[in-house]
Amino acid sequence: MRFSKTFIKTLREAPKDETARNGALLTRAGYVHKEMAGVYDYLPLGLRVIDNIKGIIREELGKIGCEEIAMSTLQNPEPWEKTGRYSDQEVDIWFKTELSAGGELGLAPTHEEPVTEMMKSYISSYKDLPLYIYQFQTKFRNELRAKSGILRGREFLMKDLYSFHTSEEDLDRFYAEVEEAYRRIFERVGVGDSTYETFASGGIFSKYSHEFQTVLPVGEDTIYYNADKSIVLNKEVYNDEVLEDLGAKGEKFEETTAAEVGNIFKLNFKYSEPLGLKFIDEQNEQKTVYMGCYGIGVSRLMGVIAEKFADEKGLVWPESVAPFKYYLIGIGEKGMAEAEKFFAGREEMALFDDRDKRPGEKFADSELIGLPFRIVISDKTLAENEAEICERSTGKTWRVSLTELFEKF
Amino acid sequence: MRFSKTFIKTLREAPKDETARNGALLTRAGYVHKEMAGVYDYLPLGLRVIDNIKGIIREELGKIGCEEIAMSTLQNPEPWEKTGRYSDQEVDIWFKTELSAGGELGLAPTHEEPVTEMMKSYISSYKDLPLYIYQFQTKFRNELRAKSGILRGREFLMKDLYSFHTSEEDLDRFYAEVEEAYRRIFERVGVGDSTYETFASGGIFSKYSHEFQTVLPVGEDTIYYNADKSIVLNKEVYNDEVLEDLGAKGEKFEETTAAEVGNIFKLNFKYSEPLGLKFIDEQNEQKTVYMGCYGIGVSRLMGVIAEKFADEKGLVWPESVAPFKYYLIGIGEKGMAEAEKFFAGREEMALFDDRDKRPGEKFADSELIGLPFRIVISDKTLAENEAEICERSTGKTWRVSLTELFEKF
Repeated sequence: MRFSKTFIKTLREAPKDETARNGALLTRAGYVHKEMAGVYDYLPLGLRVIDNIKGIIREELGKIGCEEIAMSTLQNPEPWEKTGRYSDQEVDIWFKTELSAGGELGLAPTHEEPVTEMMKSYISSYKDLPLYIYQFQTKFRNELRAKSGILRGREFLMKDLYSFHTSEEDLDRFYAEVEEAYRRIFERVGVGDSTYETFASGGIFSKYSHEFQTVLPVGEDTIYYNADKSIVLNKEVYNDEVLEDLGAKGEKFEETTAAEVGNIFKLNFKYSEPLGLKFIDEQNEQKTVYMGCYGIGVSRLMGVIAEKFADEKGLVWPESVAPFKYYLIGIGEKGMAEAEKFFAGREEMALFDDRDKRPGEKFADSELIGLPFRIVISDKTLAENEAEICERSTGKTWRVSLTELFEKF
Repeated sequence: MRFSKTFIKTLREAPKDETARNGALLTRAGYVHKEMAGVYDYLPLGLRVIDNIKGIIREELGKIGCEEIAMSTLQNPEPWEKTGRYSDQEVDIWFKTELSAGGELGLAPTHEEPVTEMMKSYISSYKDLPLYIYQFQTKFRNELRAKSGILRGREFLMKDLYSFHTSEEDLDRFYAEVEEAYRRIFERVGVGDSTYETFASGGIFSKYSHEFQTVLPVGEDTIYYNADKSIVLNKEVYNDEVLEDLGAKGEKFEETTAAEVGNIFKLNFKYSEPLGLKFIDEQNEQKTVYMGCYGIGVSRLMGVIAEKFADEKGLVWPESVAPFKYYLIGIGEKGMAEAEKFFAGREEMALFDDRDKRPGEKFADSELIGLPFRIVISDKTLAENEAEICERSTGKTWRVSLTELFEKF
């Protein structure tokens, strides 16, 4: 992409009402634009990060046989009333709206009810099971406060996966596959080292659920981990009873803050029972379908990655999610011409800063935007038939020959 | 894709409340699931059609320098109040909702106001112009009636493009480029022959706008065209004054029904003036930005294609938008084994009907689902080292040798 051809501009200062570091940096670097607290637009660079994260999730879910769909935002209250979740007392983050033809609708904060209802058209026999269905969908949650940038949105992008099974054993089997897929996803987007599968409350129908928590100073959750991090608990279940359950009584736990990036849940009959999602088993008996649900906050994950790796100069993207791999700068007439040559055919890999700006400004913007490598081709480096590479995450700078540049980069 | 591994099922009958042919066929063939009137979920096959249409639009808009973004659904009333369009009297299809922190929000029925407001952060000088920005966004319109399947949605997918210019001449230049891009898009998705650029009312700030209307018996619009179809008018501007303007007075016009699939509009200062989107020109004077907007109803276009080509047996997709190119059937043990061989490596090109069903059912489903070609490999065709190909759009059936099948298909 040519910087001169895109409308984004880096800003010296973030809007005054943007107190979260991720929101401030992403705004200054031209990734997002704030509409209101908890509501953001995604500009070309930001959309590319989102698309890269979606691509990784899609690949990993594809490997375990999941199918992609897209469900609606507007919600008929009926199935939600059957599970008791349409009530504002029960679920306090609903946005609701009036249909001009009469009646009230909700904006989906999640999709368990409609997906369970929908599957009554597609599941009738054990032969139809198991099934795994996911979507990337904008969710709406009427949060009282939303001051964490894209970490907590009133409107945000979520990947939600739902699984349907004939037995608890089969649900357990798939649940373990999702655990593995999630580990690979968090590893691939760059937060594997600091993301722990964490015991959390399971609600009414299952003793525990699991969250994937990424250690983060500004995270809204508190987690406890033991030395080898093989047991990690959300504060909500950090008590003697649970520790005894897990055989971890007496072990020393450390406290830290973290951000929840994923959440997996054995629903069992929680939604299939009230909504009547049944199947006929091999003995011709009618049984209730077992369900699981598995979420990843896609836009939140982008915010977590931004917060996690940013330094005083700006953003630092892992290569797997970075909007471009290279930030390309040409200095001087010959440097610019050689940079043009390098850019040809690499339009999808490089952001070419061809703006009419001083090198100092371009260097500062390259730090702020945070692509993995900066490539500088100047009359000076060309004198030695070389280009300069700088790795954003380490600040390490080195020279490569033009031949190596064109062959290996 | 293996049919046995997907959750979709073809249905003998459409839901009773589904009176539109596109809705009925798309539901029966497993492309969509109806949540309520005007609100649909997109199942794996349907999502692939949508993605194919989006891909074509993306390519053509990329060619004329457009950049993709993603704006929010939730709308701050402020910019809409400045243009007078927040009022339910002015715009009668708003969905509105209450923010729990206080205040009312709208669900975006279109995005002129927020995109104009946003661009105040990115446009300040003539050097920043021109700019072309688009998105694929779910729009919400509180229609009193929505009985046309996915042709008229209360929640639907739209591509909306906005352009920003220093002068009317530059707006005119880009407007003409979009006209060409739109022609290519409608050509590529298969409705080029029956889609006419149509004069329509331009509203207050411009004499005419242009719609792209696809001739369709169930279309909600009425258009008038002359013999060579070089002049086509929407009923709303089919009057003596306009005919005189176009130098077409006295010509014979025929009437037909059509569906609006696209709409392009010279906005001039309609939004930039009330919202204060200005730039400094080369003489250092402050001027107002010229704007244009250009829509394509993506989900409606899918419905139009479905309506347009369907026959008594089911859907008929043009190859460019079809979810898969081939519907693959193996009959008999050897036929099945050979079909498996063909399928290997063609998972993204073929829907392999490997279900435990009678051939007759598979043939009927292949007609209903409407992929461009059906490939049948049976013990009978194998006896002659051949496979049978059937083209869905013509019903033409022929044999090819296995060698040709594996090499050319």
